[in-house]
Amino acid sequence: MSNFGVRRLRVVNPYDAAFREARSAVGASGLLAKAEQYETVAEAVADCKLVVGTTAATRRELQHRLLQLDVGARTIKRQLKTGPVALLFGSERYGLSNQELSHCHWVMRIPTREGHGSMNLGQAVAVCLYELVRGRNAVPGKTALGKNDKATAASREVERLTQVLLEVLRVSGYVNPRAVAAEEKLRRLVRRMALNTNDAEVFLGMMRQVAWKLGASDRDDG
Amino acid sequence: MSNFGVRRLRVVNPYDAAFREARSAVGASGLLAKAEQYETVAEAVADCKLVVGTTAATRRELQHRLLQLDVGARTIKRQLKTGPVALLFGSERYGLSNQELSHCHWVMRIPTREGHGSMNLGQAVAVCLYELVRGRNAVPGKTALGKNDKATAASREVERLTQVLLEVLRVSGYVNPRAVAAEEKLRRLVRRMALNTNDAEVFLGMMRQVAWKLGASDRDDG
Repeated sequence: MSNFGVRRLRVVNPYDAAFREARSAVGASGLLAKAEQYETVAEAVADCKLVVGTTAATRRELQHRLLQLDVGARTIKRQLKTGPVALLFGSERYGLSNQELSHCHWVMRIPTREGHGSMNLGQAVAVCLYELVRGRNAVPGKTALGKNDKATAASREVERLTQVLLEVLRVSGYVNPRAVAAEEKLRRLVRRMALNTNDAEVFLGMMRQVAWKLGASDRDDG
Repeated sequence: MSNFGVRRLRVVNPYDAAFREARSAVGASGLLAKAEQYETVAEAVADCKLVVGTTAATRRELQHRLLQLDVGARTIKRQLKTGPVALLFGSERYGLSNQELSHCHWVMRIPTREGHGSMNLGQAVAVCLYELVRGRNAVPGKTALGKNDKATAASREVERLTQVLLEVLRVSGYVNPRAVAAEEKLRRLVRRMALNTNDAEVFLGMMRQVAWKLGASDRDDG
């Protein structure tokens, strides 16, 4: 919940010892400390205009409209603009009872596989909340730009690299100095690498050093 | 993993006691029983043509291309049609090290909020795998495959190339034999080239010849 910026946890009739312990644990999040405790689902969702159950979709749910998570999330996001929405999760072991489900407007399910539908509670919550924030930051911030996104190297640089590499390969005896086809093949290969400016420069530096070590006359000093 | 039908768990250098205990626990899933154990990331991803790291996106990751989960998942799904893809997760406490990250082609992040970016490991895995199956039934049909998709080199080949190139650069005096960062930088650079199988093989042949000419002891005869 905290990861996805969802801050209101409401707990219905928790197992007291465990709940108290979790709350008072060292490093317990503020979210847990502020969790509200209720005795019934009805009280917990009282101020919500939309209550959505979650389920591994056994027979039971046929009494409710059942939506895939991605479809349901669209409706939830719309509704969130007008007021609080409750996502209702059942206990780890039993899920939501029919009685609890009866408070829901509809039910959604995570597309788990048929043979193993029931999820770990924490993981199910994470997946549902992820779907709600998914795409929210469609416009990435500066962190989304890595070194690799630098401009693709210009042909000039790529060709310089090609030539030094070719010289290295000639001196090494990998290609016959007269073989034209080899040069073309190499040129194509280097271009398929689609190096960015920075990588091309680094790679060029490497190959120059190798050429020097091999005693090649680097014909591309320009 | 089991919920989303992902069956191959590979564990690198696990904490033995915990791993053995988890495996032999009553009701341990077949998935866990069949988990493969490796000593290095390189071995674990050897047969994968695409290796994707996961991160809470701290400063470190600026060395890799960083994609939001939903964007990265599209590429992963395409690649999955042609061969295995590795999703690499770090330890609960420390995430992925730079050394581990250097085996990745790029890195993706779940859109968690700035103040609380780092997720519980199991929840992060669930969210990533959910994104991969999300809408699976909505959009059938195959995407056309480009030439390059067919034959991306497997990590095994790319790593072999990296090692020979590294040896060449060491013997040439381009990198200090002790410089670990240089190896990681080189590993990332080679992966950014996104070589196809054929090009990787050709390039490897070139560098072996250069290494031989330089009198290097090619440590990668296997």
